[in-house]
Amino acid sequence: MSLAASQIKGPLGGVTVIDLTRVLAGPFCTMMLADLGARVIKVEVPGSGDDSRAYGPFVGGKSAYFISINRGKESLALDLKKPDDRTVFEALLGEADVVVENYRPGTMEKLGYGWDTLHARFPRLIYAAVSGFGHSGPYSTRPAYDLVVQAMGGIMSLTGQPEGPPTRVGSSIGDLTAGMFTAVGISSALYRRQIDGKGFKVDVGMLDSQIALLENAIVRTTISGKPPGPLGTRHPSIAPFDMYRTADSWLVLAAGNDHVFRHLAATLGRPALADDARFATNDSRIVHVEALKAEIEAALLTATTEHWLPIFTAAGIPCGPFNNVAQALADPQVQARNMVVSVTDPRTGELHVAGNPIKTSAFPDPATRAPAPELDEGRTRIRGELGLK
Amino acid sequence: MSLAASQIKGPLGGVTVIDLTRVLAGPFCTMMLADLGARVIKVEVPGSGDDSRAYGPFVGGKSAYFISINRGKESLALDLKKPDDRTVFEALLGEADVVVENYRPGTMEKLGYGWDTLHARFPRLIYAAVSGFGHSGPYSTRPAYDLVVQAMGGIMSLTGQPEGPPTRVGSSIGDLTAGMFTAVGISSALYRRQIDGKGFKVDVGMLDSQIALLENAIVRTTISGKPPGPLGTRHPSIAPFDMYRTADSWLVLAAGNDHVFRHLAATLGRPALADDARFATNDSRIVHVEALKAEIEAALLTATTEHWLPIFTAAGIPCGPFNNVAQALADPQVQARNMVVSVTDPRTGELHVAGNPIKTSAFPDPATRAPAPELDEGRTRIRGELGLK
Repeated sequence: MSLAASQIKGPLGGVTVIDLTRVLAGPFCTMMLADLGARVIKVEVPGSGDDSRAYGPFVGGKSAYFISINRGKESLALDLKKPDDRTVFEALLGEADVVVENYRPGTMEKLGYGWDTLHARFPRLIYAAVSGFGHSGPYSTRPAYDLVVQAMGGIMSLTGQPEGPPTRVGSSIGDLTAGMFTAVGISSALYRRQIDGKGFKVDVGMLDSQIALLENAIVRTTISGKPPGPLGTRHPSIAPFDMYRTADSWLVLAAGNDHVFRHLAATLGRPALADDARFATNDSRIVHVEALKAEIEAALLTATTEHWLPIFTAAGIPCGPFNNVAQALADPQVQARNMVVSVTDPRTGELHVAGNPIKTSAFPDPATRAPAPELDEGRTRIRGELGLK
Repeated sequence: MSLAASQIKGPLGGVTVIDLTRVLAGPFCTMMLADLGARVIKVEVPGSGDDSRAYGPFVGGKSAYFISINRGKESLALDLKKPDDRTVFEALLGEADVVVENYRPGTMEKLGYGWDTLHARFPRLIYAAVSGFGHSGPYSTRPAYDLVVQAMGGIMSLTGQPEGPPTRVGSSIGDLTAGMFTAVGISSALYRRQIDGKGFKVDVGMLDSQIALLENAIVRTTISGKPPGPLGTRHPSIAPFDMYRTADSWLVLAAGNDHVFRHLAATLGRPALADDARFATNDSRIVHVEALKAEIEAALLTATTEHWLPIFTAAGIPCGPFNNVAQALADPQVQARNMVVSVTDPRTGELHVAGNPIKTSAFPDPATRAPAPELDEGRTRIRGELGLK
């Protein structure tokens, strides 16, 4: 007996992922794999399942939070401490390509399913772990949440208003980016295994992932000895490159060089700004960045964002509105790119969730997606495929 | 003649990437591929090269910004409008596995190197494009920067203080996450090609990538019709889960359930908080979240962060400091995980940059990395490998 391929078409078609992950970092990773065509079998604790099944908002008694990161997966409830369920789990591992977990380090070892054990028994199996601090180092076994790693990892020190209070990135990028790095690790491991036939372990920490996102802030800090602080919305070294007030809301404008700045000033109806000595070069515009902002806003405040946007767009100047989530989802480009997809769940009816940002020439990008599974919905089907009762 | 493999050991060993990308989203993607063992040959405009070679800070006349996202790559300067250089470029494509570009859509077509043309001539070549708005839709050819897509994509509407001004995520996650999704697309395409022998096109937009990061904010918006706003540092539906003031700075504390809250209150020296009717359940704690914060801070303000951290850590309560970038880089866990690596460049001397967050059991994770290339440093070597003058 062997497991069938996913019905979803994609580059990872034919790949089977056994998914022990809960809540966000791991499930976001395995949703990416499912969107790429892998069959993802979510192994959950009997009774309650993934903790996020209890997170609001709820529709028809089902967590919309859970649906938004578990669509297109299957569910099997297994108690990994019970012999019968261990038999099922081991049969799954024998058929699977990848196992993913986001337990605290050591948990899999306690269950008898640590990497060394699994690798000895299933040498082709790829093992991926995503955890708060990774599987080594002094904090390895500590609990972590998104807010903890955002605060420790430095990104919050760059986010917020100058002299303002600490500000969290409003999306859980501590979890999400760790899930993304794990997906890169897994897909590169799948490639490698086609070459040499061997599985290996991928170990991604949320705190590590935050460091990887600091990019040039690291060299700016280590060269000068002075860590940078938050700048609101402005660019540290280019001006104008900021969000500006209009008569009714806000507008992003960005001019990467003197030529674009001259064009921007003319489009704003203030061509003289480009001849002002304070604003002649990018270096001088950075020195006088507050004065420049006041001049630009004085002009922009005479009309609405809706007035200005098509004018700057037609002029080819990088610009954009400040959208709330409803406005972002309704944006014609977001719609045209199929970035809001529909999931129809028997309990909730139709819901809208994020689409797959990895578009390809070879595979469909359907506007409707399979719903997230009810707990243990795959029990009979998956056991049957494995030839177990 | 054929191109040698990268000296870097990793799952993508033996893969060759021709990298036409500039500045951030594309170079971040190809740095991930280089860290995973791919040989990345950066094709740059003769004379000036990648725009980011002109971005500060500079050390020894070389851009540290450029080094921090181009280490471990090679450089070849080619003018893709000149016949001789086109011959070299086409010889490279004939040997390569992947080509990556982050031009505005249409640029490759104008050069005669659009996807259809390349696919017909090099059917195994994987083509990846990362652009502001993707290769379809009404905004496809518009210019975009990180700030533009952060503002349009909704994440900024969730980031900041309640009633405060717009706040940008302090790292360029518009670029970085698009680069990460592109890396997932490329590595899954490499896997697929091992199965079916065919290359395909991967098309990632920065705006799309922002939508993919909104996770549960999408369902919260579409279900209620009310888009969520920024919350500073607090969690929308769990309390206490926030950053709190101490005598000298700040401390993150998180209690995901009533049991942990009781333990947190006792550890804080205020066990009575857990018996206060306002704080009896998570739901009531969310209603009284400001009063709860005041109580917690009243206790924390009696001592420093350095006093409190080991106490909460020993109690097993998720907690952490608010680190600036210098503190984050010096953190013992970050150091133990090799997340700050050393690059020694002949011009700059030793610099420190981010390590690779994708740790594996199969490949080394060296503490020193190859420097970023000088413009066209690979001219003789790469032409020689191709059998060209």
